[in-house]
Amino acid sequence: MIAARGTMAPSAPQLVYDFAEGSREMRNLLGGKGANVAEMTRLLGPELVPAGFTITAEACVRYLDADGVVDGLSAEVGAALARLEALAGRRLGDPADPLLVSVRSGARDSMPGMLDTVLNLGLNDISVEGLAARTGNERFAWDSYRRFVQMFGNVVMDIPGEHFEEAIAAAKAARGVTLDTDLDAAALRELVAVFRGLYDFPQDPRAQLERAINAVFDSWNGPRAVEYRRLHRIPDSWGTAVNVQQMVFGNKGETSGSGVAFSRDEITGAPEPSGDFLPNAQGEDVVSGVRTPRDLAELAEWMPHVHAQLHDILRRLERHYGDMQDTEFTIEEGRLYMLQTRNAKRPAQAAVRFAVDAVREGLLTRSQAIATIHADRLDALLHDTFDPAAPFNVCARGVAASPGAASGEIVLTAQEAVGVRAAGRDAILVRPFTEAEDVAGFHAAAGILTSEGGKASHAALVARGMGRPAVTGVDAMQVDLQAREVRIGDLVLRPGDRIAIDGSAGLVTTDDVPLVAPAMSEDFLTVLAWSDDLRTLGVRANADTPQAAAEARAFGAEGIGLCRSEHMFMDPERVPLIRRLVVALAHDGNGEREAALVDLRRVQQADFAGIFEAMAGLPVTVRLLDPPLHEFLPKPQELRAELDWAQSVRSADLPELLAVQEALTRLAEVNPMLGLRGVRLGLLYPDIYAMQIEAIFGAVADVRARLAEPPKVEIMVPLVAYESELVTMLELIDELAQAHEMRRGEDFTVGTMMELPRACLIADRIARHADFFSFGTNDLTQTTLGFSRDDVESAIVPGYVARNIIDGSPFDSIDEDGVGRLVQMGCELGRMTRPDLYTGICGEHGGDPQSIGFFHRAGVDYVSCSPFRVPIARVAAAQAAIAALDPQTLS
Amino acid sequence: MIAARGTMAPSAPQLVYDFAEGSREMRNLLGGKGANVAEMTRLLGPELVPAGFTITAEACVRYLDADGVVDGLSAEVGAALARLEALAGRRLGDPADPLLVSVRSGARDSMPGMLDTVLNLGLNDISVEGLAARTGNERFAWDSYRRFVQMFGNVVMDIPGEHFEEAIAAAKAARGVTLDTDLDAAALRELVAVFRGLYDFPQDPRAQLERAINAVFDSWNGPRAVEYRRLHRIPDSWGTAVNVQQMVFGNKGETSGSGVAFSRDEITGAPEPSGDFLPNAQGEDVVSGVRTPRDLAELAEWMPHVHAQLHDILRRLERHYGDMQDTEFTIEEGRLYMLQTRNAKRPAQAAVRFAVDAVREGLLTRSQAIATIHADRLDALLHDTFDPAAPFNVCARGVAASPGAASGEIVLTAQEAVGVRAAGRDAILVRPFTEAEDVAGFHAAAGILTSEGGKASHAALVARGMGRPAVTGVDAMQVDLQAREVRIGDLVLRPGDRIAIDGSAGLVTTDDVPLVAPAMSEDFLTVLAWSDDLRTLGVRANADTPQAAAEARAFGAEGIGLCRSEHMFMDPERVPLIRRLVVALAHDGNGEREAALVDLRRVQQADFAGIFEAMAGLPVTVRLLDPPLHEFLPKPQELRAELDWAQSVRSADLPELLAVQEALTRLAEVNPMLGLRGVRLGLLYPDIYAMQIEAIFGAVADVRARLAEPPKVEIMVPLVAYESELVTMLELIDELAQAHEMRRGEDFTVGTMMELPRACLIADRIARHADFFSFGTNDLTQTTLGFSRDDVESAIVPGYVARNIIDGSPFDSIDEDGVGRLVQMGCELGRMTRPDLYTGICGEHGGDPQSIGFFHRAGVDYVSCSPFRVPIARVAAAQAAIAALDPQTLS
Repeated sequence: MIAARGTMAPSAPQLVYDFAEGSREMRNLLGGKGANVAEMTRLLGPELVPAGFTITAEACVRYLDADGVVDGLSAEVGAALARLEALAGRRLGDPADPLLVSVRSGARDSMPGMLDTVLNLGLNDISVEGLAARTGNERFAWDSYRRFVQMFGNVVMDIPGEHFEEAIAAAKAARGVTLDTDLDAAALRELVAVFRGLYDFPQDPRAQLERAINAVFDSWNGPRAVEYRRLHRIPDSWGTAVNVQQMVFGNKGETSGSGVAFSRDEITGAPEPSGDFLPNAQGEDVVSGVRTPRDLAELAEWMPHVHAQLHDILRRLERHYGDMQDTEFTIEEGRLYMLQTRNAKRPAQAAVRFAVDAVREGLLTRSQAIATIHADRLDALLHDTFDPAAPFNVCARGVAASPGAASGEIVLTAQEAVGVRAAGRDAILVRPFTEAEDVAGFHAAAGILTSEGGKASHAALVARGMGRPAVTGVDAMQVDLQAREVRIGDLVLRPGDRIAIDGSAGLVTTDDVPLVAPAMSEDFLTVLAWSDDLRTLGVRANADTPQAAAEARAFGAEGIGLCRSEHMFMDPERVPLIRRLVVALAHDGNGEREAALVDLRRVQQADFAGIFEAMAGLPVTVRLLDPPLHEFLPKPQELRAELDWAQSVRSADLPELLAVQEALTRLAEVNPMLGLRGVRLGLLYPDIYAMQIEAIFGAVADVRARLAEPPKVEIMVPLVAYESELVTMLELIDELAQAHEMRRGEDFTVGTMMELPRACLIADRIARHADFFSFGTNDLTQTTLGFSRDDVESAIVPGYVARNIIDGSPFDSIDEDGVGRLVQMGCELGRMTRPDLYTGICGEHGGDPQSIGFFHRAGVDYVSCSPFRVPIARVAAAQAAIAALDPQTLS
Repeated sequence: MIAARGTMAPSAPQLVYDFAEGSREMRNLLGGKGANVAEMTRLLGPELVPAGFTITAEACVRYLDADGVVDGLSAEVGAALARLEALAGRRLGDPADPLLVSVRSGARDSMPGMLDTVLNLGLNDISVEGLAARTGNERFAWDSYRRFVQMFGNVVMDIPGEHFEEAIAAAKAARGVTLDTDLDAAALRELVAVFRGLYDFPQDPRAQLERAINAVFDSWNGPRAVEYRRLHRIPDSWGTAVNVQQMVFGNKGETSGSGVAFSRDEITGAPEPSGDFLPNAQGEDVVSGVRTPRDLAELAEWMPHVHAQLHDILRRLERHYGDMQDTEFTIEEGRLYMLQTRNAKRPAQAAVRFAVDAVREGLLTRSQAIATIHADRLDALLHDTFDPAAPFNVCARGVAASPGAASGEIVLTAQEAVGVRAAGRDAILVRPFTEAEDVAGFHAAAGILTSEGGKASHAALVARGMGRPAVTGVDAMQVDLQAREVRIGDLVLRPGDRIAIDGSAGLVTTDDVPLVAPAMSEDFLTVLAWSDDLRTLGVRANADTPQAAAEARAFGAEGIGLCRSEHMFMDPERVPLIRRLVVALAHDGNGEREAALVDLRRVQQADFAGIFEAMAGLPVTVRLLDPPLHEFLPKPQELRAELDWAQSVRSADLPELLAVQEALTRLAEVNPMLGLRGVRLGLLYPDIYAMQIEAIFGAVADVRARLAEPPKVEIMVPLVAYESELVTMLELIDELAQAHEMRRGEDFTVGTMMELPRACLIADRIARHADFFSFGTNDLTQTTLGFSRDDVESAIVPGYVARNIIDGSPFDSIDEDGVGRLVQMGCELGRMTRPDLYTGICGEHGGDPQSIGFFHRAGVDYVSCSPFRVPIARVAAAQAAIAALDPQTLS
């Protein structure tokens, strides 16, 4: 029969497949559910899996394109139904012994928001009697019919569910019972009559089937489904398949039941299967929460043979799929049927435990086991989280800006945060937005909460770098610094009041939610160790302080890929030093500039020495000053306010403030991203770079005297566009190296940050002078796409995702076709003139698993990311290596 | 002898060449002067060109690299000197009959700032007497010696020239004479004694020669030379050659003299030779201005045979070089010697006339003639200029922001400009800086003058687009709008006072300099017609109004390559319309937005119709809205002032102003260049793009009804980064086209502006949906280089040029290695998927001859530039085609 249908012209593809025809490789055509039930049919045989057929996603696409008319679909469905009737020995709509079916949607990826399941399709006022007579179970027949009329009305006809629930509640009240199962056949018969009054129920089973199938198709374009696809980057063009399956009945009495079963514990990953079941119930009762389901373990007492059989099946499925399984089953009068299976979603700790156990059990190789982990979710194991068992009320939502949870008392300034911390209590720093001078508060606070800003705001970036949880952009919250109040709707909070945030979910609550500490469990360490064996990509961290460097090393970083030398200036004690320098730049020759440089050199050298010490024996890439100088000055509005005040009281600070104002005016830029920064500063103000280079050399000499293994210092020149910029900087570096008796190649190396398209285009020429390239993919994304991160992430990216222009922010996962192409070109061209060129990634993409996969393929030597992403990057790098060897391994 | 030296090992290149050995092809080695004197020796024979030798630029490079020690140089110079002595029959330093020589620097390109000429080298206290005896002319001998001791002291020994001039003046005063020629031998002998007291004069002629040669080498690194090279983009690595030539004497009495001669009139290009000469003088007297030289025509009366011979030589040289020549000659006792020749620098009108005459005379082919023109200088023929004969005082200097000269009375507002113009007088609009609402003043004013801003300022861009002269960034000028005063130092000017500006040179004067009107002479039109025959690159104009379109067509534009649809909103009458729309964007549904769009559509359609009519039969590329919307709102400070005022008087405008303020806050961006603009606006506010597209279709329908030849309308979508952006816009365009019965491919085409690196990198995919690409090289330069034009041109480019990082602004001539590479990549990839893809350039580079050469080679179909650059682009495009055929044709 298959062969016969196989001869059809290619212009008319097969639109319907029997379960027996499909396999898990046909996921794109049959959907995840259809492919898996087909695969399970092959594996377990028809006696364990009720028969049925799948209408392809292709049919759905045609249906939607053609406004409901698909040539040949009706005929193919009819033929498939006929085959199913023949197998089942029953006919749909047979008044005496009706075939009943379930209708379920099933897209390529699991996708909520579409049509829910319709069970017991095929019943009508006549065949319900036949079913009662045939099964000798009148209550069962009417319970099935009641459920069908309810589901069809609710799901296919869009009748609000509460209408049905109210009728059931009324029926139970009238009879003085509390459970649905306490309603007898007569009550159910009456309920059906009530339900039938809510809409025009079609009595013809073929019409029921057609309408149910079309309703699944239509639900692909329902608002919830569309919204879900946008959020999860699922193309509109996929469409959904429809599965029609012969019913088996868990509601046939006390030897029947329905349940869900995981092949291992779905929370911990422990090897014992877990799940829930309900006797005398259909599947939807288990998940609806109307009755409290029983733990799967209890099945062993109730039906030991079924329990044993189920265990055996779960083990077989797991072995077959090579992954933990999530199944649905039904027991009909003591006989087990498997309805569905799929790889189980699982929290990070379960994923890690499964991976380790699976290798120990011989189920999977290490590569296969590592490939089952969702690297991004490992974040949960690295930060405090809200106790998942603790209920709480969300009082506001914002941007999930930095992962982890925190609770503590509200503070409104960095100083207060320091004070609360010193008193041994936890503080949450709450601000409208944050700036350089708030950074001391970040160190002291347990978490950060701001009313403004997104994922790219100062608060978010600094919090992520430090591993502090942060929620930003909480629109509903007003932070009134003058009144010293935080208002969320009617709620008014003051410093000292307790608050808690979940930076992984963007939640704010005033409930005192217990926190669960992160666990670098034995299993997690095993996974990381295996990953290190498997990966070829190096993993470093971005760290700017000795503390961050130590943290990074503890997380397994193999060096520092980006030490932003200017971040040391951000410390409140140091801001005056750099500010003095910036102001003095306009006035050569009065000694102010030189004095400021001497002071800055002192603090930089000490910081560098601390970082080098923390990274003894490992490479440390120090980036020379990068940001525009006006970033070190106060904001214009703030300065205006200070000036007004100083003028009104004739303050002695007035001349200094006026000098700052002059500097601010002088340095103002229309597009600071594309202005006077990076190596441009180094060329126009060589004394600043010289100060930094001397501080580096001084620190190298300092730690070399103390450490057995000196650090491998790499000086990185940022924002290079022209070969000659680097050459000029090399002259300065060489000159200072000579003075400090440092040898390039031995005591230090010099490379460039590749963050401009031009640099990638002439990488062959730049590589003649550079020991290494580090791709700054944040800025490279900004310039290649013309996307100012500050402006575009909030104003454009959401609209672009909504309109399907892009899948997500190019700042989250690298834009492979544009930015990625330039990275590849940079590596290839660079190695043409310097085959041993060392290349890395120091943008935030370095911590994103998807991007890491790309970088591995692009031939980059290492990635660098924030310390808390290092473990994730180690696993993702291993997965990239595995995928490159065998693309089938990762699904 | 040549062969013998030719056998030297390649590691020891020949460092000295006799004139007889060289040729014009050896310019890089011998310098321009050395190569030309060698060529002239070949052409005219040794009897007309005094013998000598050239020390190569390579020798100079080695000398500077090796701190003065060059192996074998001294021996080679000695040998060359011996050959010269043999030819001359005299020896250097012979007490009885000394050989005298001149020593001159001569780099590859003419380069002032190096060592000046030293004449009469070889004389000393003894040989001067021998010279006197041998020539029987004591005065001549002592005049020669006086000149030598003076020049050697001044040029080689760095003795300030005024010390010598003072001594000469004292000598003349003592003798009561006024001219140098009136000083007799005794007086000159005394002068030499005085000069010898000024420094330690070397008596040894070989030492004189060595020191003079080394002084030439050293002068390559003199501050003036270094500065000149930086300004004119000449590599430091070239070095200079040194020419040593046997002296002939124009100061041997009344049958001797020196002069300069051009093969044609150096001002007009008329065929008669022109120049100056002085009897009884050496060459430096002619140019020093000590005595007033006589016109070359007078030579015909004084020495008819020499005059005729010179004419003949000039013709021969011109024929030989295929270009107008600029020569130096000396007459020694009635006999003519040619000392130098080179291609003559000449003003635009002379260049044009020469080109046309040269073809008519059969001297050059059309291609060769076109190649002799410096296309960039043709600008002078397209704008008013200051009368070159009129003297004037420069009272301030600024940026040469838009070429041409203008004079008129000072006005301070657009309104005043309109008033003065209406009264039939010329106005110069003087402002601190200009903005959108000043544009009406640009139309009315003869010229624009601002105290702030550079070449990329609003004033500069708009003025260039309109062909109005402009000087910007006049730091020394304060424009006090409140006091209604313009202050330049102590000078205070007020509205109505006359002022004049030269926008080609960046000059400001209060003198009433007469203007010379531009001449599209017959010859110029001929040159343009020939250029059109020769070129393959199309030339269009950037024009935003019907007037500009008409102007562009008159200048020969073959269409409009860029019509910035938003420029129509800049008209002061229309600013309120667009402002209303921008404010309304925040408040959907109250009808304001729709009403504003209806009004805007009306004015846009009328403007488009006017432009299409002016371009009947030609292509017009209309770019949809591009700039960020906040550009249509007032500046924050201005609005603040208006708001303060409105609040103080409780104005009825207050709500409106508050709404504008809200819009300004909402739309503020950190980096507007990389923010919400271009197609991003079209995607997020499709109704604005729909309005523009409907206005275009409406205008097409309108003019089609009236014109025999409808325009070829090309709709251009700006700032595309993703293929899907264009696809989404195409859906909108197709939908509206259907509604307006317009057919893509027939009534209009659709393309993209390529101005982001990503677009060039995925051009193959974009080309699937685009009929044409137009490279917006301004923005592509900004993103590829990370250079915000507003910030970088003034703050970074000058410093970068000074440090030899770049040759000049990448906004003037295209950065071939980076931006150019992307343009090439865009063309190549685009044609892979659409072989008939039409490509153009619409950045300002489209009017730059150097960039046009690149675009021709890159295979672009056309360039588009401001109307006034169109003739230049036509010539440059022809030169590009000529150069591509025969790279030798253009030097």
